[in-house]
Amino acid sequence: MQYPLTLTHILERSEKLFRKKEIAGRMPDGSMCRYSYADYFARVHRVAHVLRQLGIEEGDRVGTLCWNTSRHLELYFAIPCSGAVIHTLNLRLSADQLAFIINHAADKVIFAEASLMPLLDAIRDQIPCVERIVIVDDEYETLLAAAPDTHYQWPRLDEDAACAICYTSGTTGNPKGVLYSHRCLFLHSMGLSLADCFALSERDTVLQIVPMFHANGWGLPYAAIMNGSRIVLPGRQLQPADIASLIQDERVTVTAGVPTIWMSLYAFLEQEKFDVSSLRLVVCAGSALPRQFVELYAKKYGVRFMLLWGMTETSPAATVMTYRSHLDELPEAERFDKLARHGMPMAGVDTRIVTELGEEIVWDGATMGELQVRGPWVTSGYYKEDAPHGASFMDGWFRTGDVATIDEDGYIQIMDRTKDLVKSGGEWISSVDLENAIMAHPKVAEAAVIAVPHPKWQERPLAAIAPLPQFRDSITKEEILEFLSGKVAKWWLPDEIVFIDAVPKTSVGKFNKRALREQFSSGSLRPASTQL
Amino acid sequence: MQYPLTLTHILERSEKLFRKKEIAGRMPDGSMCRYSYADYFARVHRVAHVLRQLGIEEGDRVGTLCWNTSRHLELYFAIPCSGAVIHTLNLRLSADQLAFIINHAADKVIFAEASLMPLLDAIRDQIPCVERIVIVDDEYETLLAAAPDTHYQWPRLDEDAACAICYTSGTTGNPKGVLYSHRCLFLHSMGLSLADCFALSERDTVLQIVPMFHANGWGLPYAAIMNGSRIVLPGRQLQPADIASLIQDERVTVTAGVPTIWMSLYAFLEQEKFDVSSLRLVVCAGSALPRQFVELYAKKYGVRFMLLWGMTETSPAATVMTYRSHLDELPEAERFDKLARHGMPMAGVDTRIVTELGEEIVWDGATMGELQVRGPWVTSGYYKEDAPHGASFMDGWFRTGDVATIDEDGYIQIMDRTKDLVKSGGEWISSVDLENAIMAHPKVAEAAVIAVPHPKWQERPLAAIAPLPQFRDSITKEEILEFLSGKVAKWWLPDEIVFIDAVPKTSVGKFNKRALREQFSSGSLRPASTQL
Repeated sequence: MQYPLTLTHILERSEKLFRKKEIAGRMPDGSMCRYSYADYFARVHRVAHVLRQLGIEEGDRVGTLCWNTSRHLELYFAIPCSGAVIHTLNLRLSADQLAFIINHAADKVIFAEASLMPLLDAIRDQIPCVERIVIVDDEYETLLAAAPDTHYQWPRLDEDAACAICYTSGTTGNPKGVLYSHRCLFLHSMGLSLADCFALSERDTVLQIVPMFHANGWGLPYAAIMNGSRIVLPGRQLQPADIASLIQDERVTVTAGVPTIWMSLYAFLEQEKFDVSSLRLVVCAGSALPRQFVELYAKKYGVRFMLLWGMTETSPAATVMTYRSHLDELPEAERFDKLARHGMPMAGVDTRIVTELGEEIVWDGATMGELQVRGPWVTSGYYKEDAPHGASFMDGWFRTGDVATIDEDGYIQIMDRTKDLVKSGGEWISSVDLENAIMAHPKVAEAAVIAVPHPKWQERPLAAIAPLPQFRDSITKEEILEFLSGKVAKWWLPDEIVFIDAVPKTSVGKFNKRALREQFSSGSLRPASTQL
Repeated sequence: MQYPLTLTHILERSEKLFRKKEIAGRMPDGSMCRYSYADYFARVHRVAHVLRQLGIEEGDRVGTLCWNTSRHLELYFAIPCSGAVIHTLNLRLSADQLAFIINHAADKVIFAEASLMPLLDAIRDQIPCVERIVIVDDEYETLLAAAPDTHYQWPRLDEDAACAICYTSGTTGNPKGVLYSHRCLFLHSMGLSLADCFALSERDTVLQIVPMFHANGWGLPYAAIMNGSRIVLPGRQLQPADIASLIQDERVTVTAGVPTIWMSLYAFLEQEKFDVSSLRLVVCAGSALPRQFVELYAKKYGVRFMLLWGMTETSPAATVMTYRSHLDELPEAERFDKLARHGMPMAGVDTRIVTELGEEIVWDGATMGELQVRGPWVTSGYYKEDAPHGASFMDGWFRTGDVATIDEDGYIQIMDRTKDLVKSGGEWISSVDLENAIMAHPKVAEAAVIAVPHPKWQERPLAAIAPLPQFRDSITKEEILEFLSGKVAKWWLPDEIVFIDAVPKTSVGKFNKRALREQFSSGSLRPASTQL
């Protein structure tokens, strides 16, 4: 019973059981490259031999700067199972941040796509820890070809050994490193595969849209291989037409991604006809998906959306919208209200909401509090940081920095980031709620709400709205306010509305409110024509 | 990430999430007693208070001698979560064996059904370790009523702490104790709930037919509560009519039991009309289920059977018949051949077959070898026994004592117990295979094959056959041999056939071959009229 929970077990079991299953990857020219699990694992063994030849030892960090490709998937297993730590580099970071995390993790070798080499070239003299950069192209293939064609003798690792590290995309301060153990990612893979979570099966075809540099690709690559699912890797092309054609041509059953992916795909499917009927589950996380998309996809395409909440610090999946039996009895509108929540804690995960004083709040679906979580795949500290401190932990619980409500069924609704709340006259306004209400307007593509200082109320909301292109010239502030009236409390109505072309995004596709705040909320609020 | 994997987590999470879900138990008078998870957990807290009042401390063993009832389910959580060890006593053991395991485990308190008290009364003076016997009846209710009506403060347990102990039903020598840790049963619960295992969901209604004293009730009670499934407990009545009516009336979706249960239920459903269409999965283990029942249930009732293999030492589930996608393409007969195998290792479990010299055997579906397993819910030793020895372990693998083949898909077929093989002239005859071939005969109810000494071939097979009642006077040895001809190798044909009323069974319903051997194989084989 002391048998260790490791990614090596997943590798060895799936290598024996699922030899004929397929991994398909889209190449830069749009063609598909296909090989079997047997071929895949043979290459994983070769990569491990290469790592040893490059001088990688147990515990060393090895960076990857790659798109979602089969080669990246090879590194996903070869690095951890050989005892090293895979450090997936976010290719959307600034040069400064990239140099910071490479140095902080002390990456010894980096595997990088040829197309992404300019990012490294720009900082090459700032990352002296990196002894070697392998271009994941002909150079990678040459190294593999020269490696022994024999089984690599995987080391017997302790389950608490580190296997991966990801850095938070922190919008304030330097990124922080979260180190994952083998045990952590093994258990996370089991958690995702549960019937009431993703119900991942050997029968699934999983399309890996979530970037594999984003919080372990949400754990899907490890879970898919644990179950012997067919895997489709989209490469670097992630436009709606690319996604729609992959779903149709490869008969994808499960996929996952951030809301903007699904909102733009929906708009695309309205214009062009694609068959997406093979989809049984779309997992959506990263930020709130406006409720109407859950309903529209369900009704128009029969596609079930499962909202998920998590963070880099939670591996990342912590709560999922399990569609429980009592929801069947609800009127349709209430049912979709529930389905647009962020779900309940997965088996293994414990959640609570607390007041600013740390008192636990009852689950009434209305009272907001800071969401705190604990569980076997929740971090207990940051890499190279001192003992856990109060800003991040409380009595063994991880403080998420998210504000949420929990209803009597245990379903969570993330209302805001603690720092994004609009604190108006001692009361809280959820910027996310207000954004969703605005995005329900038929002329609106995106909307972000930020707090701006106010002499009387301390803070008041400002809405930055990106209209759909065809309404750019005709949309008015008045019609937005009229639309909101009755849908949100009167005192929630934004004091100012500005129209913009698009909401700025962070490196992982979330609304970048820091950028908006810098643009709009410096100084005091100028009198707005729409102020009530 | 050091958050411990405990049954306490399952309890605390399900207590919060699934308050309205139902637990229904059949009472001795046939009526159903129903209560909610909320009521159930409130009583679990009371039971924990009672345990403390009875002087139970962390690590103490507490016995249960109970049928499958909601009170037994209360003890299933209250004992382990309060830090003690639940010892489920097999009510079909002989008095000697019962006294042996109670003393070996040193049970301090035993909770026993009133109807089973005669078993304890008979050995009361042989079990001095037992300080108190609580009758699970009015006495139990009185104790609960007197206990504090407050939440019990569950201790924070280490995941490696013991939570349960079961004894093997060992047909030779004294029973051996297998101690389960919280981690072990937590992981086993997750394993059972995976989509490619039982896919247990909140939407399921689980009928607990497997006795809860039999290897943790195959782990179903813990897994069902982890997922918030509705639970139906049959009490002590397990005749086909009882089972059929529970499935029909309670709309059961998942259940599990030994082959004899399903064989007799099938015969019953042929006579009486019941609606079993709610069943989506029947798990079958304990011994081999003749292939035709998998096919008959599927075709006649649309019920999917999932064969499972495991042992007390494997918590018990180790391999399950995951119905993988490539099976869809097989001709029907081949598909059912596969579905009648014992499945592939669950995620987390590793399997191999080895020769008598310990060399690993290739997975060709034909070569037999001893089955060995390892994994986080496989035992690493027996309770109060010295360090693991060669008879039970080899290089970290548990030696199951079962002989199996593994095919190229990783599907296992248990051919026999090592000790039940018929070793004829240096070749192996699988007694189980031969039994199944005989049981396919339309006049046969049950058949067991044992080895009997032979002067030339060392051993030869003897078949003890129980005909269906209506054929008891007309069945002949010749027609059996003729039926087998062409279905099994000629040298597998039994040298002797005897007709009996029923095959003797062990305490858990398996064929008791030891009893048969004592009856038939003492001395040398007498000349048989049917010898070829």
